[in-house]
Amino acid sequence: MTTEAFSVDPWAVVEHTLDLNGQAAAESVFALSNGHIGLRGNLDEGEPHGMPGTYLNGVYELHPLPYAESGYGYPESGQSVINVTNGKIIRMLVDDEPFDVRYGKLRSHQRRLDFRDGLLRREAEWTSPAGRTVKVSSTRLVSLTQRAIAAIEYTVEAVDGPARIVLQSTLVSNEQLPTEEPDPRAAAVLEAPLVAEANIAVGTEAALVHRTARSGLRVAAGMDHVIEAPEPFDVSAESSENNARISVTTVLQPGERLRLVKFVAYGWSAARSLPAVRDQVLAALTAARFTGWDGLVREQREYLDEFWEHSDIRLEGDVELQQAVRFALFHILQASARSEDRAIPAKGLTGTGYDGHSFWDTEAFVLPVLTYALPGAVNQALRWRHSTLPLARERAAQLGLDGAVFPWRTIHGEECSSYWPAGTAAFHIGAGIAAAVVRYVRATGDHEFERTIGLELLVDTARMWRSLGHHDLAGRFRIEGVTGPDEYSAIADNNVYTNLTAQSNLRHAAATATTYMHEAAALGVDPEEAAAWRDAAAAMYIPYDETLGVHPQADGFTEHQFWDFDSTPPENYPLLLHYPYFDLYRKQVVKQADLVLAMQVRGDAFTDEQKARNFAYYERITVRDSSLSACTQAVIAAEVGQLDLAYDYTAEAALMDLDNLGRNSHEGLHMASLAGACIALVAGFGGLRDHNGTLTFRPRLPGGLRRLTFSMTVRQSLLTVEITHETTTYAVRKGGPVPVVHDGERVQVEPGHPVTRKTRRHEPVERHAQPPGREPARRHAQPGSHTQATDQLPAE
Amino acid sequence: MTTEAFSVDPWAVVEHTLDLNGQAAAESVFALSNGHIGLRGNLDEGEPHGMPGTYLNGVYELHPLPYAESGYGYPESGQSVINVTNGKIIRMLVDDEPFDVRYGKLRSHQRRLDFRDGLLRREAEWTSPAGRTVKVSSTRLVSLTQRAIAAIEYTVEAVDGPARIVLQSTLVSNEQLPTEEPDPRAAAVLEAPLVAEANIAVGTEAALVHRTARSGLRVAAGMDHVIEAPEPFDVSAESSENNARISVTTVLQPGERLRLVKFVAYGWSAARSLPAVRDQVLAALTAARFTGWDGLVREQREYLDEFWEHSDIRLEGDVELQQAVRFALFHILQASARSEDRAIPAKGLTGTGYDGHSFWDTEAFVLPVLTYALPGAVNQALRWRHSTLPLARERAAQLGLDGAVFPWRTIHGEECSSYWPAGTAAFHIGAGIAAAVVRYVRATGDHEFERTIGLELLVDTARMWRSLGHHDLAGRFRIEGVTGPDEYSAIADNNVYTNLTAQSNLRHAAATATTYMHEAAALGVDPEEAAAWRDAAAAMYIPYDETLGVHPQADGFTEHQFWDFDSTPPENYPLLLHYPYFDLYRKQVVKQADLVLAMQVRGDAFTDEQKARNFAYYERITVRDSSLSACTQAVIAAEVGQLDLAYDYTAEAALMDLDNLGRNSHEGLHMASLAGACIALVAGFGGLRDHNGTLTFRPRLPGGLRRLTFSMTVRQSLLTVEITHETTTYAVRKGGPVPVVHDGERVQVEPGHPVTRKTRRHEPVERHAQPPGREPARRHAQPGSHTQATDQLPAE
Repeated sequence: MTTEAFSVDPWAVVEHTLDLNGQAAAESVFALSNGHIGLRGNLDEGEPHGMPGTYLNGVYELHPLPYAESGYGYPESGQSVINVTNGKIIRMLVDDEPFDVRYGKLRSHQRRLDFRDGLLRREAEWTSPAGRTVKVSSTRLVSLTQRAIAAIEYTVEAVDGPARIVLQSTLVSNEQLPTEEPDPRAAAVLEAPLVAEANIAVGTEAALVHRTARSGLRVAAGMDHVIEAPEPFDVSAESSENNARISVTTVLQPGERLRLVKFVAYGWSAARSLPAVRDQVLAALTAARFTGWDGLVREQREYLDEFWEHSDIRLEGDVELQQAVRFALFHILQASARSEDRAIPAKGLTGTGYDGHSFWDTEAFVLPVLTYALPGAVNQALRWRHSTLPLARERAAQLGLDGAVFPWRTIHGEECSSYWPAGTAAFHIGAGIAAAVVRYVRATGDHEFERTIGLELLVDTARMWRSLGHHDLAGRFRIEGVTGPDEYSAIADNNVYTNLTAQSNLRHAAATATTYMHEAAALGVDPEEAAAWRDAAAAMYIPYDETLGVHPQADGFTEHQFWDFDSTPPENYPLLLHYPYFDLYRKQVVKQADLVLAMQVRGDAFTDEQKARNFAYYERITVRDSSLSACTQAVIAAEVGQLDLAYDYTAEAALMDLDNLGRNSHEGLHMASLAGACIALVAGFGGLRDHNGTLTFRPRLPGGLRRLTFSMTVRQSLLTVEITHETTTYAVRKGGPVPVVHDGERVQVEPGHPVTRKTRRHEPVERHAQPPGREPARRHAQPGSHTQATDQLPAE
Repeated sequence: MTTEAFSVDPWAVVEHTLDLNGQAAAESVFALSNGHIGLRGNLDEGEPHGMPGTYLNGVYELHPLPYAESGYGYPESGQSVINVTNGKIIRMLVDDEPFDVRYGKLRSHQRRLDFRDGLLRREAEWTSPAGRTVKVSSTRLVSLTQRAIAAIEYTVEAVDGPARIVLQSTLVSNEQLPTEEPDPRAAAVLEAPLVAEANIAVGTEAALVHRTARSGLRVAAGMDHVIEAPEPFDVSAESSENNARISVTTVLQPGERLRLVKFVAYGWSAARSLPAVRDQVLAALTAARFTGWDGLVREQREYLDEFWEHSDIRLEGDVELQQAVRFALFHILQASARSEDRAIPAKGLTGTGYDGHSFWDTEAFVLPVLTYALPGAVNQALRWRHSTLPLARERAAQLGLDGAVFPWRTIHGEECSSYWPAGTAAFHIGAGIAAAVVRYVRATGDHEFERTIGLELLVDTARMWRSLGHHDLAGRFRIEGVTGPDEYSAIADNNVYTNLTAQSNLRHAAATATTYMHEAAALGVDPEEAAAWRDAAAAMYIPYDETLGVHPQADGFTEHQFWDFDSTPPENYPLLLHYPYFDLYRKQVVKQADLVLAMQVRGDAFTDEQKARNFAYYERITVRDSSLSACTQAVIAAEVGQLDLAYDYTAEAALMDLDNLGRNSHEGLHMASLAGACIALVAGFGGLRDHNGTLTFRPRLPGGLRRLTFSMTVRQSLLTVEITHETTTYAVRKGGPVPVVHDGERVQVEPGHPVTRKTRRHEPVERHAQPPGREPARRHAQPGSHTQATDQLPAE
């Protein structure tokens, strides 16, 4: 384990030394967020850093999207998340020397992110170049209970002699960033995105108010402090346009401590006035100070106790995977807990990867986990999608379609994808949103949501599908010229994943419109329209290659030339950085699960034999150049009995960021892969499916696990499933009875009466082959895996 | 005819008044060029102008191609033709007033471009705001015999009183242009592309030398003058970085004249030194002055007499079409006569449309005409392609292919297309080049060319095809993921045009490599490789829709949804400006002949019944949003007996620029459409095909024509074909006998012994339908057709 950055602990990520090369990735791993505020794990003193980052969900700047050859309907404006005012910084002067780990001697340095209390703790002992030693400890939180608040407790102690200490607690706007934007015009816009509007500094309190120049968002950051120091000490406050500073000065004798509690509050608005946004931040600070540091810490712990009670996934036999899956759950929680009517970005609020955009993976990977873990967050996330319906309808009209076309990538709701074959053409995002609605409603029974938000999302996506496809001369409903999940194919006809998920979408829209006839009528849905949806769904064309006995990913796919894997050296992955799209698109090579994902989300549309043959076929040509693949391959590998392969894929998905497998964790964490790790365990080894409204399980464990236990919130009940190689036990720990299906057997699980059934045994089967060199990542044997990547970054 | 800009004359374009709205399009129509120098038909005095333009073939500037989302293999640098030093300008001061047609009173203004002598004549009578009247006449030429030379004879005469005249003959560099570049970075580069290096002005002579900043091309322009004026007159010379000026001053009494002959010379080089390029220009001036104005005019006439004798197409019954086809031939000649180892751009040197790039249409449309009219120009044009082989091989390697991939659009040879689905993926350009080689060699018997240039072009394109396609399990050779000629489809499998032209390419490469075994071996071709080409050609997969009895343009095309033509209002054409590519690509709508073009160039691969059915099918879905369509539709319409429809399409192709049918003639002339008009007559009504090395004819005339006569140079013989509704006569006027096939009958045409055969009668058939509103352009009934388009410009 000595080559690993983080030691293994089932409830924490612990870093024992500071590795400046891996710092940027560690900043993502140690990021704190509540879904509204995101703070990268930068050092308190601000420098050195990999990438300083402070983000507010929904705060972005616009920049032009350039095209050498433009086209109708190309988005003209991009949206990029911006680094807002940095409230994390507490700089320290020890005698004449600034505390900077690059100078003097860093005697020890440890950081620990604890999943149970949600605190990031840091302990350091440092000897200044002048020879004075201090102990620094800081604890940081982003409150899950007070949405606008982050807080830091910072303590410094003199060790080997008296030290004159100056702490400068600051707010810094328009920090210089180490990014390199490929487009200089975009870079210019994002370099200093904040225009100063006001600054205040009084006593221990200060605030800065700015506005973004193009998107016109007003952003306020404020701070207040509680200071404990030996007398005499001095406090001063000052502020300017991009800087506010509270300075505390004292002299510490050996063993004496200076303790500073910094409360930081953020607020932003596209509509509210400067005084309103400023006052909102000052009010949040007042409330936080009233709660106090200890109160914030206690609230955080209580919130997380509740979360873990309802959502923990426990493993026996693999402590590394245990850590990784809790890390995953913790970060999914952080990304979504308080996002409230905003998107959940692909990277959460842990970095600027993908410009801070949200993609289809929110609905397809993150929400399926949250549905049973934190259903309120799903409600919020879908409300955000719903709030963008006017924009999605405009986009549909621009594309000549009915209903709504949701953007491939966005922050605010407008399409920001400048390469339509791999963006807008991926219409399956609409089906993913619809599926998320259906799953949420089934899991929660939230009929008020279904009647309002849900119905409208289903209707508008169904309308899109109906106008996108057409009945051919044989009556089959075909959907042509679209892009499925696999980004190494594009603009194909009758992508199986797309057609199957569109089929579900159309069916559920028709059914829901029938349930809520009055509300549907208000949306203009008449019986003819619902009938047309049912017809299209019933006639949906699903291509099948009779010769090979497999489903082509899309029309003609299995007739294409195979990628020449044998002549592709390892350093040429990810392929998209070394081969043109033209060549990738036309050959049999798969970036990420596509047909295999269809077999997960529409498992009801495939026979077991088809699943086995399809999986074997696609396994040989899937290179997993996307982080959105291992988890899905894990689920189907488990289903077809490839349990060890499933186990390896699960680990790959779970360790994506802790082991920096994609070499790009410095840009932020892979939320969908982290969610996918949870899916791999629950849907893979638990065998959970929710195709028809009832939870069905087909438990089976790989050799590496002794026990797998997970909890799910189902219609206000708390169901726990405990799987060993011998038995599976279903228990309801809260709420009413929960019907489940265990390996085909219907079981009613009553509260207080756990039900135990045999876990089916699977005979070992021959492991399927992957393309050469594209086997699942080997654990603990990735040399240099924690080195920050300096090469170009692969797309998702 | 009063609404037309130009009056009809079989040997000239004549403009009787100056219409400032139509000026930009008229500047293209009146452009003079020899393929090396291009001068737009700007007024002598420089202003007002639509777009000032002086171009040198091969002189371009580089600019970055921006991408919001970049990809492997995307070209990073664009090339744009630049407006070089303007040598056309002769400004005049009449007393205190500059001659400017916008002020004072323009009493008469006429311009005439004569196809027989190649001169642009202008006569104007103008009364200055102060009331003084002068007569101005100027004659301009770009020499077809002295490649570096243009010349202007300018005469002014006082009419109604003494006039103090100042003539300023100038060279102006870095003129301000009215263009709007969508990308500001590109605009910045192209705004003032020339960096001054030297300037000279002595006596009546001056020169400016510049260099382009990024492409590093040195450009020199020089001028010298012969002056005839009443004594006393004064001449002065001056020059600065971007300006050189020779001023002539005198006072003219009524009836007295001032005559100025201006010789202008251009030279450029990527390699030669400043003194070398400057001296080359001064030497060219010396030679031109030695030849004198009258000598230049005489040489021009002799050159054109020879051209018309060999290449004229004569029509009886339609003087407008007669004018248009001579206009077409004249401009094709101008674009290619002296291009000598440079590309023939899509717009010739008549404007900046398409950035001055060359496309596949050079080989596919322009060279087929030149092959029989000016075969030396074909030799030169293909030598240019050959000279870019190193770049095309690099591009192929980048794309993972063998052999050479020629660029979709370029000036210098590098791919400049920034949207690969409609650019690089159009691999058929390789087959077009190969076909041009084969046609040229057959028509000329130039075996030295075949053995060297031709063989290498065939080998490298065949290698490309062999590596681009693959044999499937059934042994068929498939070419997937490519784009055919139709730009409303992209990235499809087994495009019939592509596969059929690739088949020819592979066959001819194998055959030529067998003929020149030694030379082929030197290129690394062994018998195995040639066999692989023959195998691929023999196994080439050509999709066919058995249900409909037509060829799909590409796999699956005929299963796609039809475009909703009925709901497409006329103002939404061209469709690409009003609908997204995504929607166009996935539906049955055709921008330009694709399958229909395959039926022309590979007519041997279709039965007559297939041709008729295919033509009817595609006619209903082809919208002709490209100028590269009407001519092809004319050819096949004629073949399937739709003679009136063919006639209308011929007229549309021929009148593209004279009637400004595309509303974008201000950007330059449509060389391929002009060439297409000639093809429509010769291959359509003459029925000429050259599939198998023998010229075959199937003459048939539409009702609108009484007689069609054309001449062709075939292996140093001059063949003339004269078609009436009753008979067709073949005559050899120079050289040896020429074998032809008349309507299936082999005929040997001996010199001096014309052969007459019956012209087959065709029963009138029902005219095929086009999409609503997309019938061929109606003649003389296009309101506003001469108005300069102010809306966005359609792509080709």
